[in-house]
Amino acid sequence: MARMEKIGAFGLTEPNHGSDAVALETRARRIGNEYVIDGAKRWIGNASFADVVIIWARDDEGNVGGFLVEKGTPGFKTEVMTGKVAKRAVWQTDIALTGVHLPLGNRLAFSRSFKDTGRVLTATRSGVAWEAIGHAIAAYEIALTYTKERIQFGKPLASFQIIQNKLAAMLANVTTMQLLCLRLSQLQAQGKMTDAMASLAKMNNARLAREVVAEAREMLGGNGILLEYHIARHHADIEAVFTYEGTDTIQSLIVGRDITGTQAFAPR
Amino acid sequence: MARMEKIGAFGLTEPNHGSDAVALETRARRIGNEYVIDGAKRWIGNASFADVVIIWARDDEGNVGGFLVEKGTPGFKTEVMTGKVAKRAVWQTDIALTGVHLPLGNRLAFSRSFKDTGRVLTATRSGVAWEAIGHAIAAYEIALTYTKERIQFGKPLASFQIIQNKLAAMLANVTTMQLLCLRLSQLQAQGKMTDAMASLAKMNNARLAREVVAEAREMLGGNGILLEYHIARHHADIEAVFTYEGTDTIQSLIVGRDITGTQAFAPR
Amino acid sequence: MARMEKIGAFGLTEPNHGSDAVALETRARRIGNEYVIDGAKRWIGNASFADVVIIWARDDEGNVGGFLVEKGTPGFKTEVMTGKVAKRAVWQTDIALTGVHLPLGNRLAFSRSFKDTGRVLTATRSGVAWEAIGHAIAAYEIALTYTKERIQFGKPLASFQIIQNKLAAMLANVTTMQLLCLRLSQLQAQGKMTDAMASLAKMNNARLAREVVAEAREMLGGNGILLEYHIARHHADIEAVFTYEGTDTIQSLIVGRDITGTQAFAPR
Amino acid sequence: MARMEKIGAFGLTEPNHGSDAVALETRARRIGNEYVIDGAKRWIGNASFADVVIIWARDDEGNVGGFLVEKGTPGFKTEVMTGKVAKRAVWQTDIALTGVHLPLGNRLAFSRSFKDTGRVLTATRSGVAWEAIGHAIAAYEIALTYTKERIQFGKPLASFQIIQNKLAAMLANVTTMQLLCLRLSQLQAQGKMTDAMASLAKMNNARLAREVVAEAREMLGGNGILLEYHIARHHADIEAVFTYEGTDTIQSLIVGRDITGTQAFAPR
Repeated sequence: MARMEKIGAFGLTEPNHGSDAVALETRARRIGNEYVIDGAKRWIGNASFADVVIIWARDDEGNVGGFLVEKGTPGFKTEVMTGKVAKRAVWQTDIALTGVHLPLGNRLAFSRSFKDTGRVLTATRSGVAWEAIGHAIAAYEIALTYTKERIQFGKPLASFQIIQNKLAAMLANVTTMQLLCLRLSQLQAQGKMTDAMASLAKMNNARLAREVVAEAREMLGGNGILLEYHIARHHADIEAVFTYEGTDTIQSLIVGRDITGTQAFAPR
Repeated sequence: MARMEKIGAFGLTEPNHGSDAVALETRARRIGNEYVIDGAKRWIGNASFADVVIIWARDDEGNVGGFLVEKGTPGFKTEVMTGKVAKRAVWQTDIALTGVHLPLGNRLAFSRSFKDTGRVLTATRSGVAWEAIGHAIAAYEIALTYTKERIQFGKPLASFQIIQNKLAAMLANVTTMQLLCLRLSQLQAQGKMTDAMASLAKMNNARLAREVVAEAREMLGGNGILLEYHIARHHADIEAVFTYEGTDTIQSLIVGRDITGTQAFAPR
Repeated sequence: MARMEKIGAFGLTEPNHGSDAVALETRARRIGNEYVIDGAKRWIGNASFADVVIIWARDDEGNVGGFLVEKGTPGFKTEVMTGKVAKRAVWQTDIALTGVHLPLGNRLAFSRSFKDTGRVLTATRSGVAWEAIGHAIAAYEIALTYTKERIQFGKPLASFQIIQNKLAAMLANVTTMQLLCLRLSQLQAQGKMTDAMASLAKMNNARLAREVVAEAREMLGGNGILLEYHIARHHADIEAVFTYEGTDTIQSLIVGRDITGTQAFAPR
Repeated sequence: MARMEKIGAFGLTEPNHGSDAVALETRARRIGNEYVIDGAKRWIGNASFADVVIIWARDDEGNVGGFLVEKGTPGFKTEVMTGKVAKRAVWQTDIALTGVHLPLGNRLAFSRSFKDTGRVLTATRSGVAWEAIGHAIAAYEIALTYTKERIQFGKPLASFQIIQNKLAAMLANVTTMQLLCLRLSQLQAQGKMTDAMASLAKMNNARLAREVVAEAREMLGGNGILLEYHIARHHADIEAVFTYEGTDTIQSLIVGRDITGTQAFAPR
């Protein structure tokens, strides 16, 4: 996969479990020299055409593991989800697993508990924090270009107080988002990034990007709801960013647990 | 039209003039016993199939008037706009007017200045304030239903503090939006509604509805970006509501002018 | 008291219990023909000079009751709290109750459970929703007067876009706050006001008033931190309003419980 | 002054000019070998006891200069302002200048236009951005300590979802404020800090600090309005920070001018 000759997919999320991904219902029963996988996955990007999909499942002891399932394995069915309004360029997939037989060696060596899955999530969260910056900068630049060119009341929109007030706030948000990701990646490179740090960055940047994109959408007026001005696409996409790899609420509770030493996700 | 046997359309907005609609570029020249109309309109709902379109144009004296143009009149061309992501059920139209000849009688009797157009806008603004309530209530009910049914961490989402906190804010917003429109319509029925009142209601309700819909979108998590859960449609549509019949900024400046006695739209 | 010949006070809150007022630690033991009260109260308005204070305490059966304590009763000590920065005109009091003996008749007839206390709280919450309006209107009027008079860059502040934008939002907030209280009081007069309604109004109005006052404070610039311009006092006072008779969080959870049918105050 | 043996003060602001400080009314007339200063200053910190005050005034050519006025100079009167509710530790002063005679050498050598004054303001703005961090961190720590200790409904406040949600947002804000100031100071040390950068940092940090402090104030409930818990002081002080060295609005317009190339402060 690293040589880009094969395409992989990461199959964690299930239809009934988003924020509480740890509550996996997919089962990997050990039968003789095989694992037999049963369950369902949802939202799995690329899985409809991937050469191999890692399916996260719970084994007979209740431990979570990652299991490699190759394209065409009997009992493994995928269906591309339809009706998505955000991140339409990514094909996401419903997966049904019915008695999928796998050799024992297809269990990922490092994956013996949900903690290992968590390590993957921390890395992807840091990636989404960067992704939010991309949407925010695009939105800021679209808004700036548009308001400098669009004349209303005889002057460019960009010359009005309310527009400048918004542009200034957008630039401040973009700047702090960048500084936060820069620092996070420095810590990541030093092996010091914690999951709470990644969550704080994902939460903060998705929130600010959502604000920036909404302001930009509004500054384009009616043109802001037309695909050709691009901002409408960012406005739709940022909702996916706001939600995936851990919703805003979940990220805040991951940070909250780190701050207070007490978890508040679930009833105690 | 009132008997619904004919369909009409209202042609005010132009490609280069949204917020400053008064700056009409479309011209109605008087030539003998006719008006000759030249110009362009944009965003005109229903105009592609309407039996008659009212085109707002400036006459030789610089006054604004409404001119009835019937379907099929030579020089009158419409093209349905594509790429809209919001209010897709409404077909909006680009109109080109090239030497459209009209009898003098096609000028609306009451329309001698932009003030008359303004009266129409005030009424439609009050309608949009109600429209915002529709989106907000739909969003609130979708979110409430979903969070009562969706189980995470072993309990319905609706039983968690953060969710209840959001639901309470949404309900408060929906309630005040309703009370504001109720009062506005009472005043309207008594002939006491001013344009500043309509603008205040449109501004307030579009803002609050946008908040309510965004919260609801988020509470549905990933499912919130799928058309089948409906909230994604409201999330897209509310952007049109936020912008049309006067953007948020313009409404605030209409209210501001009423409060302070000074206009701040344009350079003075 | 209704004839204003005697001053009363309402002693519910305790040092360790604000939001969970139901967790009363003050005890009313029945000893022969008397109640003996022990405990502590805090934040009790007027109690230092009141002729009679109603002390809420838990009896031997664990039920909550209100007990009339007259000024000068042995074992009843009050101390005016110092260092308050908000609502300084109200003297609030720490009360120590050490073996205060009361005749049985001093227990309020209607008060047999915390539900009865709750009825009082519902009524006071509706009052605080109105109180918030008072602060908001004062702030709006101070800001409007000031910005119309204060000249900067050669023109009144009130003529600038950003200022008008803020004034319009303030007026919208004040208007919806008023409509909400009007409706609440109509329902109250008809005996239809529920505790969730009162909480929604208190929550909504305290939030909006806090926003309005903060905007006004800012619009007065440096003069906004001087007592002589009055807005600084409202800015301090609104914090008390935001918190007392149930914090913002508690109100939202009371509304949330009503919406969802599940309480989220406490661990379950 | 650098050896701290003498105390100086910076006299720019005038009673009628805050945001448009450039509109100085104080005059420095050249009469023979002297300057004669007439005018009034306001909000001048330390001026009542400073050994020397720099008075900014406009000369006969209309240029702005800084003029050293020593304590006790005839015609120079100071009066400490009263009724301040924020930053009470700083004594601010009204200054009246009536025919104050100064030798020509008392004009600061470098100060020949308002640009020179601007350089000072840029530096102090960067300082205020740091100052905002101080208030925000104090508020965060007060809130965290309090909510970990305060028990309601049988558990520490810090264990509840809504509280953790707030704490996480506060920490994110504090973190990005710190990163922004760190970067600003690096650029400042390299001589690359522009006035728009300083304004962006002051604007951003004062806004975020104001939010953090308000959340913390609320999390302390009733105790949050008592001086002994300290948060009430930060809550009052942050208003001064939000306003001084350029209000939020002015900073946003300085940034906006830099972004768009057009000034929107004043009518054009």
